[in-house]
Parts: sequence; C-alpha cells; structure tokens
Amino acid sequence: MSRAGEPIACKAAVAFAPREPLRIVDVVVAPPQAGEVRIKIAYNALCHTDAYTLGGHDSEGKFPCILGHEAAGTVESVGEGVTSCKAGDRVIPCYQAYCADIAKEPCAHCVHPKSNLCQAVRAYTGAGVMKNDGKPRFTLASDGSEIFHFMGTSTFSEYTVVHEVAVAQVGNDEAPLDKVCLLGCGVSTGWGAVHNTARVEEGSSVAVFGLGAVGLACVEAAVEAGATRIIAVDTNDEKEAVAREFGATDFVNPTKFGDKNSQTVIAEMTDGGVDYSFECVGNVNVMRSALECCRKGWGTSVIVGVAAAGTEISTRPFQLVTGRTWKGTAFGGYKSRIAVPKLVEKYMGGNTKLDRYITHRMKFDQINEAFELLHEGKCLRCVLSFD
Amino acid sequence: MSRAGEPIACKAAVAFAPREPLRIVDVVVAPPQAGEVRIKIAYNALCHTDAYTLGGHDSEGKFPCILGHEAAGTVESVGEGVTSCKAGDRVIPCYQAYCADIAKEPCAHCVHPKSNLCQAVRAYTGAGVMKNDGKPRFTLASDGSEIFHFMGTSTFSEYTVVHEVAVAQVGNDEAPLDKVCLLGCGVSTGWGAVHNTARVEEGSSVAVFGLGAVGLACVEAAVEAGATRIIAVDTNDEKEAVAREFGATDFVNPTKFGDKNSQTVIAEMTDGGVDYSFECVGNVNVMRSALECCRKGWGTSVIVGVAAAGTEISTRPFQLVTGRTWKGTAFGGYKSRIAVPKLVEKYMGGNTKLDRYITHRMKFDQINEAFELLHEGKCLRCVLSFD
Ligand SMILES: [Zn+2]
Ligand SMILES: [Zn+2]
Ligand SMILES: [Zn+2]
Ligand SMILES: [Zn+2]
Repeated sequence: MSRAGEPIACKAAVAFAPREPLRIVDVVVAPPQAGEVRIKIAYNALCHTDAYTLGGHDSEGKFPCILGHEAAGTVESVGEGVTSCKAGDRVIPCYQAYCADIAKEPCAHCVHPKSNLCQAVRAYTGAGVMKNDGKPRFTLASDGSEIFHFMGTSTFSEYTVVHEVAVAQVGNDEAPLDKVCLLGCGVSTGWGAVHNTARVEEGSSVAVFGLGAVGLACVEAAVEAGATRIIAVDTNDEKEAVAREFGATDFVNPTKFGDKNSQTVIAEMTDGGVDYSFECVGNVNVMRSALECCRKGWGTSVIVGVAAAGTEISTRPFQLVTGRTWKGTAFGGYKSRIAVPKLVEKYMGGNTKLDRYITHRMKFDQINEAFELLHEGKCLRCVLSFD
Repeated sequence: MSRAGEPIACKAAVAFAPREPLRIVDVVVAPPQAGEVRIKIAYNALCHTDAYTLGGHDSEGKFPCILGHEAAGTVESVGEGVTSCKAGDRVIPCYQAYCADIAKEPCAHCVHPKSNLCQAVRAYTGAGVMKNDGKPRFTLASDGSEIFHFMGTSTFSEYTVVHEVAVAQVGNDEAPLDKVCLLGCGVSTGWGAVHNTARVEEGSSVAVFGLGAVGLACVEAAVEAGATRIIAVDTNDEKEAVAREFGATDFVNPTKFGDKNSQTVIAEMTDGGVDYSFECVGNVNVMRSALECCRKGWGTSVIVGVAAAGTEISTRPFQLVTGRTWKGTAFGGYKSRIAVPKLVEKYMGGNTKLDRYITHRMKFDQINEAFELLHEGKCLRCVLSFD
C-alpha cells in the first residue's frame, strides 16, 4: 500500500538539545515536495560528525534535530519533477550534494573540475530546512512541533526527506546496504583525500594522524596508490595492530616522543619528512604537526578532520615558502552522486577493506550505546539496523 | 692580465652591522677553490630581501657580510673541476642553486619535478661561507678580517665568489646585463609564482597583494596566463596607475574599506572570491586575507613575500576544508640554472615588461641612497652600475 503523498508516522532518534542523549520518539515525516525524495532508511553507521554536533560543538547546529548522515535505504516516494530516482531505488543519501545532471542551472562548483562543494541546497541544509518552502519535513507526533534536518540527510529516522540532488544511486542490485552505507561519509572521505585531494603517487611516503575509520581509509588508499612508507600516528597504542593490518609500515605514538614533537620524529624517520600527510583527528595542533612533518620542496598536507569551532591553524609562512602545500578535503573531493555508485562497484569488485571497518552491529534503538562505543578506541564503525 | 689563482683587491659595500648604512671599503676576494667561480659583477639591482637582512630581521643573517643577490656579470676565473662555465662567460648568480647537471650525486630536490630548493650548498650559504673549506672568500683589506657571504651570491662587490651550482649562463650574447640582472630574483619570482606554483589558467580571476616589482611581475604573468580579472591590492593609491599599466583590471586600497576586510570586499567584487591570489607584501595578516579572498572549492593562494622572523600565519581550518589551497614559492619555483637562460630568451623575444621595472639607475657608490628609494613607493628596481 503506497503512502506516497501522505505523511508517514515512524520512529526517529531526536536530538532535543546539545549534550543530551538522543530520544527515540514518534515523528511525522511529510511527503516529499517538488525536487525532494522520501527514503526508507535501512542502515545507519555512526560518524564522529554526529557526535560533534550532539556535543554542541557545531555553531551551525539547530535543535531539536534528527542527526545521521552515513546511511543507506530505499526510495519510498518522490516529489514533483524528480527524475533521477524513483520509488524502490536503493540509494545512499549524500550530505554533499551534486546538481550538474539535475539542475537547470548547475552551480559553479558542480561544473568546475576541482570542486565537489555543490551549493544548490547548501543554504537550506545548513539551516536545517528544505529548499522548496524553507521548512523541515519532520514534526513531533506528540505536539506537531517542527524538528530540524541535519546535513540535508537526517538518517536517524525510519523515513527521511532529502533533496533530489542529495540522492546517490547504489546502482549494483547485489550490493549489501548494511555495508555500502559506509560509503556515505567516512570511508569515502579517507579514500578520496588520498586519491583526489593529495593524489598520492607510487613510491610516496605518507603519514596518517588519527586511526579511526577515516584515518584507516587513508592508510588503505595509500597502499592502493603504491605508497611504500606509511607511518600511522595515534596516541592509542591499541591502534597499532589495525593500522598494520590495513597496510601501515610504521606506527608511532606521539605521547611517547619525550621532548620531541611529531614533526621532528617523522622527519628523522624519513630523512626529511613525508611526501603526503593526512590529519584525521580534528585538532589544530595535530594539523600543524601534519603540515610540518611534510618534506620541504613538495610535501602536501591534507586536513580531513573537523576542528572545534573557533579554533585556528597556524604555522610559520616559511613552511609554505619552502614548498609545502596545505589543503583540506570534504567528502574526499568526490562529486558525490556520480562517485558513490562507482565506489559501490569498487567494493563489489572485492578489492577494498570496507567490511573490516564494521566492528559493531546494533539495533537502531541502541543508538545511544553506539555513540558511547564511538568514543572508545575499539569501534571503527557501528552499523544500526531498523529491523 | 689574468689574475686567476690570485686574490683580487676591489671595492665592496660591506654591511658591518644590522641597521647601519653599508660602507664601501676595499676588500680582498680570494681565488675560487674547487667547484667555485669568481665573477666580476657589472650590475646590481636592489631587492627587499637585502633591506630585510640589513634591517636585522633575518635571524640567519651574519655580520659583517656583503649583501646583494640580483645581479649580472662576467666570469673572471673558475676553480678546479668547474665545467659548466669558463672565464668570459656572461652569467647571473643564483641564490637558489641547481645541481642536477653538475653534482655526481644530485640532491633530492633537483631530481624531483616539484621542487627547486637545491640543497647542494644550502647549509654553507645559510652560514655565509663556502662549502669547500667552510670559510668565506672575502676579507677586509685593512685588517684581513673575514667578511661573510650572503645568500651564496654577495653581489654588492666588484668581484664575488660563488659555488658553480649557483651560476646561470645568460646564454644570449646580445642580452643587456643591465636589464637581465633583474631575472636573478624579484621578477622571476613573480612570474614563476603565477606560472609554476599557482599555474593560473585562461579565464581565471586573480588578486595580487602588494605592487612592488614582485607583485607587478605577478600581474604581468597573470595577463600572460590569460586571467580575465586581475585585482591589484595596495595601501598606496599611487600604485593604481602602474598596476593598470601592467594589466590589472581593478585596483583596491584596503585602507579605504572601512569596516570590511579585504576578503569581504574581494569576495563581493568577484561573486565569491578569486581563483588565485598572491601575497607579495610579507605580512602575515595580508597572507590571511590573500588566502581567505580565494574562492571556496578551488581557490589557491601563494605566499611570495617574506614575513618577519617569528611571525605566524593562521586561519580557520574550515577555509582549507572547503577547498582552498595554501602554498608558497621561492624563486617562483624555477629550477634556477636551467630556467634563467630561458627567461633571458623570453625577454629577448620582446614580450615582457622587464625594462619597465627599472625605474632608477645609479652608480654603485650611491647604494645607500638606492636603499632609501626602495622604501618609497615610486621605485620598482634601481640598477647600480660599477662603471
Ligand atoms: Zn561523517
Ligand atoms: Zn551543484
Ligand atoms: Zn640540487
Ligand atoms: Zn630578492
């Protein structure tokens, strides 16, 4: 029985206020309007950005809201004018949109070869609402009050409404949604940071700071790119085993450097510094270390982690004048909707470690437990299912 | 009468201490040792880096020393094993060496396609001495005390001794040394920042901060690269005319922005920011403005100016995560000894504004007057002659 065009009542994990546990409550999800898609979410993976916003660190964060941005599901219905997907399509919501094949007037970023930062709906997703009417599609079942969207995805709900430009097709019918949901954020970000943003070459030396899922995805991609020296850096010694399993050739723990800083230690290990470094912690001091451990002349450092609001990176300009490049990446530089199906195919080809990032599985109603796990070193990704 | 193998007594402008005028005194220039070249300097152009070191801002600066690094002259004699030049060759000393075609074991930078920071003699030039014996080749005629080298060039002397890896051939016999001496630093740096470091493309928008010779060389190169919008930025309104003459499409004076900063004004002028920006002032606050006036998604900012020792650049990491790239350049990324003869040919082809940078000419003994001029807005380059 199709419920297209009608509101759907379902469960969602609502963040009512910063620093409070999520509460699973009944919400009403309005039907998709023009250019919108309503998705039945099957699986969610938790990402640190959800925890970051729930922690109140995101100055843009609006409450109450429905978090969640690393997920997969099936299109329930589509609004007027939607042509790139239809009910029944298996999809991955993308917090980073892509409009070039949909919009009458694509945004400057989607037509530019170097950018993946689609601006088609950015102003609305940043404000937690939909573009068509400037309102959210979620209301509390109990009192009808509005609940804001988050990152244009809000996947911590059985049903969500997103903009068409934010819906990537899974493509391959055999692809397991409980695995490829990870391609919606962290793993793709790490892979792309290496392949798109830094463009690591065969024979390179690489340092990766922070060995969560994103950092390990950088290690995995560095191996794939042919890097011959991969130095994994983490303050938790327990990360050494998994780092080496993913292909790191060295592991160092900066808390054990004594008087020396990471820059000095890594420069000594590599006779001058690494060709590429990746900061996957979200700490401005680590970002400086990551830049300065790069080799004079051509070293490139990529900021992947999200730092606390208001913090700033700094270094002596001499670091750049002597040939280092400082960059950053969002969703690994992938133009989301066209890249995701290709990443699914890559996974289906059997040559990725995607399965290995899933260290825990839980039911959706255990979401607060899952958030606790995320703060422990042993969890890379916890996948939550609705069934 | 050849004086090869013998000391030469001549005039030089010696910097005896920071913040004191140079003194023209008699010095003795030792003969070139193995791998060294003695050059009779014909013309010097003054560059801000000389003034910077004389001002005591360079923590590496050693006194007494002979400054000067933008010059041209003729080889007087060569030391043992020197093969890339001979007595009589017209040459340009290069503070940035290049060793790949000379050294038995070229340095990692000279063989790497992305770097021009030759390390062959860097440790010695930084210390103001020659590699062969760790000593300077200059002594005071009056008491025989040693005088340090500067940047491996020390061209403020009738004769100087440099490492073979720091000697670029002029190549073209018709090239006027009183013009091409400018290719030893500032103009080449600006041209290369645009063509090599940023790689400005046809149709780009560009902002250039600081309209001395280096900034104007960026404007000139941006025009050559096909940039269609070139915003020149300087706190001195008198720079507008020369900026437009060089090809700037817009001129703005940040002291007249009121409450707005340069980032905001330039973003408004360009509907979001420029594709490329160049900082040619040497001020860390301007470096931040230059980065942040770049366009989200793909903007690249290049630090060209030299900031005061101990100062740091900073920005929010979000600026990089949203697609901006922060770089720097030294000698415009040119591999010096192989690039300089090509730049000479480019000048001889008639398609550069090289002549236009020379706003003043003086005799060598007017060098302190020339330094005064450099601090005024009207002087781009003052060329000093020995005859
Ligand atoms: Zn995420
Ligand atoms: Zn777009
Ligand atoms: Zn070299
Ligand atoms: Zn200079």
